Amino acid sequence: MGKRLGKQTLKLENRPKIVATYSIVGPKEGEGPLKDYFHEILEDDMDGQKTYEKAESNISRASIKKAINAANLREDQIEFLCGGDLLNQLTATNFAVRDLQIPFIGLYGACSTMALSLGMASILVDGGYAKYAVAEASSHFSSAERQFRAPLEMGTQRMPTAQWTVTGSGAMVLGNKKGDYPIVTHVTIGKVKDYGEKDVSNMGAAMAPAAMDTIRTHFEDTGFKPEDYDIIATGDLGKLGKEITEQLLLEVGYDIRKVYTDCGIEIFDLEGQCVDCGGSGCGCSAVVSCGYLYRKLVRKEAKRILLVSTGALMSTTSSQQGESIPGIAHAVTIECGGDTNE
Amino acid sequence: MGKRLGKQTLKLENRPKIVATYSIVGPKEGEGPLKDYFHEILEDDMDGQKTYEKAESNISRASIKKAINAANLREDQIEFLCGGDLLNQLTATNFAVRDLQIPFIGLYGACSTMALSLGMASILVDGGYAKYAVAEASSHFSSAERQFRAPLEMGTQRMPTAQWTVTGSGAMVLGNKKGDYPIVTHVTIGKVKDYGEKDVSNMGAAMAPAAMDTIRTHFEDTGFKPEDYDIIATGDLGKLGKEITEQLLLEVGYDIRKVYTDCGIEIFDLEGQCVDCGGSGCGCSAVVSCGYLYRKLVRKEAKRILLVSTGALMSTTSSQQGESIPGIAHAVTIECGGDTNE
Repeated sequence: MGKRLGKQTLKLENRPKIVATYSIVGPKEGEGPLKDYFHEILEDDMDGQKTYEKAESNISRASIKKAINAANLREDQIEFLCGGDLLNQLTATNFAVRDLQIPFIGLYGACSTMALSLGMASILVDGGYAKYAVAEASSHFSSAERQFRAPLEMGTQRMPTAQWTVTGSGAMVLGNKKGDYPIVTHVTIGKVKDYGEKDVSNMGAAMAPAAMDTIRTHFEDTGFKPEDYDIIATGDLGKLGKEITEQLLLEVGYDIRKVYTDCGIEIFDLEGQCVDCGGSGCGCSAVVSCGYLYRKLVRKEAKRILLVSTGALMSTTSSQQGESIPGIAHAVTIECGGDTNE
Repeated sequence: MGKRLGKQTLKLENRPKIVATYSIVGPKEGEGPLKDYFHEILEDDMDGQKTYEKAESNISRASIKKAINAANLREDQIEFLCGGDLLNQLTATNFAVRDLQIPFIGLYGACSTMALSLGMASILVDGGYAKYAVAEASSHFSSAERQFRAPLEMGTQRMPTAQWTVTGSGAMVLGNKKGDYPIVTHVTIGKVKDYGEKDVSNMGAAMAPAAMDTIRTHFEDTGFKPEDYDIIATGDLGKLGKEITEQLLLEVGYDIRKVYTDCGIEIFDLEGQCVDCGGSGCGCSAVVSCGYLYRKLVRKEAKRILLVSTGALMSTTSSQQGESIPGIAHAVTIECGGDTNE
């Protein structure tokens, strides 16, 4: 039975475990600082497919299947799949799961999708609604550029505040398996926040207020302080959004700087890889959490992590109609299991 | 604690209640056979806004707020909002909820969204994760035509197999309030099914296999037979999709014809209102369930209803790339509360 803490947070008293993860990234992400943490690096970001969208679907399907394999489970043992992507009508995920025999809950939270999927899958396992559930999210640089910005063939110049959509997919298997696995303990579901930012090349600024609101609410609801966490990882605010979030949180009395990082900053070498403000896309916090953060917990290099995936909720239509960019952020607490888990 | 039945169904043992609903429809829907069941009929489907998308957002927000009002609750008592729409990046819903202070779980299931939202909100209440949660879905004829088909200004001729996207939004408040309210007892989450249909003007045919699969699985999982239901309402297969679903179910041994209807057929006068095969869009099963079906249960004119919202999961990009149309269907059992509830 879930225990509600404060305004927006659930404490998962049955402590669902993340029994396996799998992360697949494109070649560019595979050259970045986290390359040794990913499970698979593609040689070709088309993954043998004819279109970017089909490539993204392929990567998405592969990460789900391989995470299930890594958990030593069969597809028919997975009772729910919670997942999504950035494409219109969740094209990448819907076409990925059409070949899987798993009941599907389609989620859209823009780049916040990984924390939302993980939160929902954790709730389903915690509540006894599923023995095993999978959480997944994906994105692809080229399908996102085509859909949200301009055809790659145009060679449009990027703004210095822009972020680089990560090509990749991450999947986690949640379950109550015996063993020393990382545990999901808290889920904070965010509200949509809109402070009026209209620049689609500055999504970090659009998402920062949502990140601040969710992190602050998480602290208030749970009683946790920044020092209770070894890592607080937003994903994916980028360099500018991270600075704004730090500042906004300082103004309300929380200094998270000692433990704070951002998935969009970790995944690329910002200077060397020409990605401007860093990575973005649902795939960003998905692969960073399934690769880097998960391994940190498994290796007991971190005891407690807060994953705060952040999403910018505009569409091309809303931007063409002069609308600002609403943001949302969802947060999930993951603790390492076993002995070091106090 | 949720009890899992068979492969895909959850039995909600705490019997969450639908304590209030609200349905808003456009003028055309307000001239149809169900006009007396809706809570509000718009005089102008632009609802005072400058664009179709903003109108849809407005209707979506209004239905949520008015459902909360109808439940005699305040916005801050609602712990989760589960909802979605057909627009790219859930534009209608995201912009609707930006003005609401409710934690938001964005769902995309194309026209299956109402059953998915209702299912998820019911699970959250059943598991003790929320005292009150709202389920919502919306669509708008003109925003859908612009996005999926052709600009209205072109006056494109419709195919006889086409369906008419409903302008409307429906919202339900789930909770454990004392009193004689309809109860959600079972949730069957569907799988994505694709039988190769590629005609975007024949979505009923594309969705029928998913409807069949979910209804059959629901019967197998629960032990219910067609005669255990007073109404089985798919939404929105339309005339052709309904016939195919009946036939497919007959082939696997289930004759649901005596209790079977389709939200897309109920909402319009198919002959008189020039809607070809009937209504469609997330808003269709949303307003039919929040208006017509809910009142049938409240008035004890039906004891047990199965709502099976059905979604066609294509995007314009996937269709341009020659892909077929995957479908999904989710089913929720609603019983009338109180004395007649055996």
